[in-house]
Amino acid sequence: MGLPENSRAKIQNKYPKGKKNLITDVPGVKVGHVTLQDDEKDIHTGVTAILPHEGNLFKNKVTAGVSVINGFGKSAGLVQIDELGTIESPIIMTNTFSVGTAINASLRYILAENEDIGVSTCTVNCVVTECNDGGLNDIRGMHVTEQDVLTALDNAAEDFEEGAVGSGTGMCCMGIKGGIGSASRIVKVKDKEFTIGAILMSNFGELGNLRIDGQRIPTPLPKTGEKDKGSVIIVLGTDLPLNDRQLRRVAKRATVGLGRVGSYLGNGSGDIAIAFSTSNIVPHYCEGGIVDMKMVHDDSLDCIFEATAEAVEEAVISSLYHAETVKGIRGKVLYGLREFI
Amino acid sequence: MGLPENSRAKIQNKYPKGKKNLITDVPGVKVGHVTLQDDEKDIHTGVTAILPHEGNLFKNKVTAGVSVINGFGKSAGLVQIDELGTIESPIIMTNTFSVGTAINASLRYILAENEDIGVSTCTVNCVVTECNDGGLNDIRGMHVTEQDVLTALDNAAEDFEEGAVGSGTGMCCMGIKGGIGSASRIVKVKDKEFTIGAILMSNFGELGNLRIDGQRIPTPLPKTGEKDKGSVIIVLGTDLPLNDRQLRRVAKRATVGLGRVGSYLGNGSGDIAIAFSTSNIVPHYCEGGIVDMKMVHDDSLDCIFEATAEAVEEAVISSLYHAETVKGIRGKVLYGLREFI
Amino acid sequence: MGLPENSRAKIQNKYPKGKKNLITDVPGVKVGHVTLQDDEKDIHTGVTAILPHEGNLFKNKVTAGVSVINGFGKSAGLVQIDELGTIESPIIMTNTFSVGTAINASLRYILAENEDIGVSTCTVNCVVTECNDGGLNDIRGMHVTEQDVLTALDNAAEDFEEGAVGSGTGMCCMGIKGGIGSASRIVKVKDKEFTIGAILMSNFGELGNLRIDGQRIPTPLPKTGEKDKGSVIIVLGTDLPLNDRQLRRVAKRATVGLGRVGSYLGNGSGDIAIAFSTSNIVPHYCEGGIVDMKMVHDDSLDCIFEATAEAVEEAVISSLYHAETVKGIRGKVLYGLREFI
Amino acid sequence: MGLPENSRAKIQNKYPKGKKNLITDVPGVKVGHVTLQDDEKDIHTGVTAILPHEGNLFKNKVTAGVSVINGFGKSAGLVQIDELGTIESPIIMTNTFSVGTAINASLRYILAENEDIGVSTCTVNCVVTECNDGGLNDIRGMHVTEQDVLTALDNAAEDFEEGAVGSGTGMCCMGIKGGIGSASRIVKVKDKEFTIGAILMSNFGELGNLRIDGQRIPTPLPKTGEKDKGSVIIVLGTDLPLNDRQLRRVAKRATVGLGRVGSYLGNGSGDIAIAFSTSNIVPHYCEGGIVDMKMVHDDSLDCIFEATAEAVEEAVISSLYHAETVKGIRGKVLYGLREFI
Repeated sequence: MGLPENSRAKIQNKYPKGKKNLITDVPGVKVGHVTLQDDEKDIHTGVTAILPHEGNLFKNKVTAGVSVINGFGKSAGLVQIDELGTIESPIIMTNTFSVGTAINASLRYILAENEDIGVSTCTVNCVVTECNDGGLNDIRGMHVTEQDVLTALDNAAEDFEEGAVGSGTGMCCMGIKGGIGSASRIVKVKDKEFTIGAILMSNFGELGNLRIDGQRIPTPLPKTGEKDKGSVIIVLGTDLPLNDRQLRRVAKRATVGLGRVGSYLGNGSGDIAIAFSTSNIVPHYCEGGIVDMKMVHDDSLDCIFEATAEAVEEAVISSLYHAETVKGIRGKVLYGLREFI
Repeated sequence: MGLPENSRAKIQNKYPKGKKNLITDVPGVKVGHVTLQDDEKDIHTGVTAILPHEGNLFKNKVTAGVSVINGFGKSAGLVQIDELGTIESPIIMTNTFSVGTAINASLRYILAENEDIGVSTCTVNCVVTECNDGGLNDIRGMHVTEQDVLTALDNAAEDFEEGAVGSGTGMCCMGIKGGIGSASRIVKVKDKEFTIGAILMSNFGELGNLRIDGQRIPTPLPKTGEKDKGSVIIVLGTDLPLNDRQLRRVAKRATVGLGRVGSYLGNGSGDIAIAFSTSNIVPHYCEGGIVDMKMVHDDSLDCIFEATAEAVEEAVISSLYHAETVKGIRGKVLYGLREFI
Repeated sequence: MGLPENSRAKIQNKYPKGKKNLITDVPGVKVGHVTLQDDEKDIHTGVTAILPHEGNLFKNKVTAGVSVINGFGKSAGLVQIDELGTIESPIIMTNTFSVGTAINASLRYILAENEDIGVSTCTVNCVVTECNDGGLNDIRGMHVTEQDVLTALDNAAEDFEEGAVGSGTGMCCMGIKGGIGSASRIVKVKDKEFTIGAILMSNFGELGNLRIDGQRIPTPLPKTGEKDKGSVIIVLGTDLPLNDRQLRRVAKRATVGLGRVGSYLGNGSGDIAIAFSTSNIVPHYCEGGIVDMKMVHDDSLDCIFEATAEAVEEAVISSLYHAETVKGIRGKVLYGLREFI
Repeated sequence: MGLPENSRAKIQNKYPKGKKNLITDVPGVKVGHVTLQDDEKDIHTGVTAILPHEGNLFKNKVTAGVSVINGFGKSAGLVQIDELGTIESPIIMTNTFSVGTAINASLRYILAENEDIGVSTCTVNCVVTECNDGGLNDIRGMHVTEQDVLTALDNAAEDFEEGAVGSGTGMCCMGIKGGIGSASRIVKVKDKEFTIGAILMSNFGELGNLRIDGQRIPTPLPKTGEKDKGSVIIVLGTDLPLNDRQLRRVAKRATVGLGRVGSYLGNGSGDIAIAFSTSNIVPHYCEGGIVDMKMVHDDSLDCIFEATAEAVEEAVISSLYHAETVKGIRGKVLYGLREFI
């Protein structure tokens, strides 16, 4: 996936791409979508689920860090990631008014797998992220069901689509059709190869600001004067052994990619980046009381930071590239990038 | 309400108490409960709703700040308070596994009042806080309904009960029965009187650590060896003109009250304090583009900080004082404080 | 100043530039340099002082916010800006090992003006920022004196030079000669014009990564394999009435400009942005106990955020454009940008 | 050291005390003082130096975390601890106006040991903390010299004095004589013993608010109406294998101890806690690129949190207990605690 080689929608890459050029190049990571489309009912929304690994996430948590780039957002579960440095649930992406439903569904999914939760051990922190798709979708209708979330979890696989699918179905980015994008890069730390992958839901930016590989891309559309009601959720996964502080640092570098495609981190844009490492697993139950962790020396982080910026930049453009034109609520049309390049 | 004058459960006060000694001494603030008790079904839970003022909160937001004292918690809506310095929804307290349902209910409540949300203006940030009542309550059953949340909102009034009611129904604090507690204090800034009020849901601490006004209180009960699975949510309201930075500072002083009653901010305790001011209203729509704000000079904050610590200390003890002994799931009994003093 | 109109070193601007295209377009702001150059002794360093206004800064503090973009840095005074939301001293830029000396000098400067400090009122928070100029300069020699700092303060004026001057004398950016750069933009909030200005000391980035207006600029120089030992300090001033939270948000948008010129926020780069508003003055002594503040509604911040990104992008390129080639310690040569474009 | 067993100045302890009941019970930690007293010149100040271990701190950094409890303070070096999770210098305590001088001295001390700094490797982050001793000391005179700081470093040993010594010489706490206090506790994680130690410089609080083991201690002195111009710096050391996130959590628990002795975290009090672990050393140069770390499982942190609160509470009282009455500038007298109990 990702971007074609011979196209204006190409980002020069300093770091080699992973095999699929998707976040699922990181071993164990899976992604699933549910797309809800119903023109009659003005439904253009969905759910995307990211599984950091294939096992029991509550029993074997991944190390994680968050960067709240701009906190005009309603994502759930971020506070605990900050405190404990782990993620113990799938990461759900959906629309803003489906956060409650997605929490409930994710919770039931985890409770079903873990009979100890809420009985002999503590509760579980469900990570649910969101963007506002109200420009195309009847968001007030709250059309996402718990079953939709469970189906997205069931659909999780190494291969997945980009563009106007899953939670990206109703998204708008730079005044054109946004959606789901992904990319991956290979970095070397002392001759050993590791993968860093990005997946994002693009819903930010202002018409006319789009830049691809630094070049301004004209999108000859009438100015709507509409306020940016955007957001972008970026999830970064890696098999590099990073600790939570370092993952927070990696998450922060997503901003670089956003800036390069033309975002200025608008006031109304809930820009959140979450990074996890599959190489530092924290068990829920720990006999010995002490956990062994590995951490890349901070002096070796530069390539990771730069590759993250590159992957995020490409993932945004890829989300636009794969999105088809969509007609939505109140007659709103959002054109796909390929109509312009 | 609050604590009786002639009792071991008395906190010496340096600042005068408000008329009711409740957070509702702050003009406009209202509190409502729904209590869910069903011994057959092991249901011991509920909802408490706090309305910062009586008008349309989305259209007229209160200035607010948050202190994440210990982030082992699943509260929703905190990230946006941090970014924008306002609260635009009721503040809901409930159990950990009812956060999703409470978000949905709060959202419907606000959507019903505001037809522009999700259509011509942005979305809304619902603040929902939680503690784990799984020690007494069948928390896995997810028994709180959206209607329960709406009823709690309907019940909101200046008078409200403390103890094992509302979201405090199933709470456990210091190994005995926790619940809802409230208190208020009057402070003077340059001869003008203002009120600072606290309401909290006490669910933290370890058996044997309770201190009232500094004195250790023996609670002669068998050691259970149970892990602290606690939390405490503290909401502070005031009519002092504070800005969001100052409200964050006020919220931080809740920690002092917690420390004095015997908390050490346990690992598993999601300790969150939220403070709002009813004197700096931020309109959703702003013709002129510039808002006038007032701010107490930081040099005058000492009395407010000290009164906050005092109100939180009393509110914790008041939550224990008013709670009756409760029998819950798996035969668990939590004794009320009045059985010991 | 800033960049010439007919040159490859041009940034397209959406917002009009201020009269001088310098931070001193913000009324009251002044900047002064001291440049220390001595080839014999390998001295290539200096001091740059920024005065947010012309009066007594301790008695009339400017509202301020900080964004620690990457905290690999030794700047002093940031913690208190975060807590109190004000700056009460000049902002000094110098090299990393001159922070102590600059604090002492700034302190003596402020004490001389304020006999009450440390006697009848509290102490004063000196803001001193730094980058490592050890690539060109004998930084271990600690050649900056307290007198140099006082002279830079004395030199403060509306007109000032850019390039390899003041604290920018020994700086290295993108593998070529860095230094001091500045730019300004005009924004409109509800038809009223305000200025946002940036000044920065550019010392970050990796050879080969430079981008001007999105275009990669080849800098055909031998790869040195040197680690980025960089940093960038960005100071933003405005006459917009923003509060400290909003200024923190503005400061955060500096990252966008950095990303666009080719930074990925390297591990070893202490990237710090400080923003102040001259329109919300907080007096040290406050009779009435309550201060009136104005705040642009957050909904109107988008133009400010975008203009900030633009000004920072231009200020970086301007710092490079004005810097001449310099020979420094250990035979190190850093070429000026104009040798490549 | 610490507090005598038969005295009103006794804190009940749940955790056993270390051998000396000092922070130097943590193997490798050393503390040195320089006390500057000159009644003629109104000099009542000094320096206290804490060495986290005996080797080269720059080459072998200790893992560390900071909690800015109240950021009305001028401490240097905190931002980098937050970003990198390490301390690479001694920790210096001194008065507010000696921070610049202490940075310079600490820098020279480290440069002398490390010829690579500023030449072939990056710079170094000097941690310097401060409280305002201007109530007793001619703080405007800036009487601490670089040599004083070097002497304090030279004096570092396992045995050290508490009370009005070193940087504690001129401190004022709760309206009486403050100073240096220390304490330590032993905790068990899965049957293995570890030590947590605290040292602090007490300069906070309001006359009349002192509590020892929860009991209010009358200090019958005339009300001065003086503003709290205080602060407290708390340094926590441990041989527990904690990571930087966990050390930040430990540092945060210092607040509990402060609250219990009567602090309400006054507006003007720069309350900073720094925690380090000697069990997770991060080398400056790292051949393999990956560092092995150990981390106590967060579920086992409760005893550490509680012991920290206890050690801080005792260290405050110990600082008061060991301080003799001092006469200072402008005729100011501060009485030692032993005059009241």
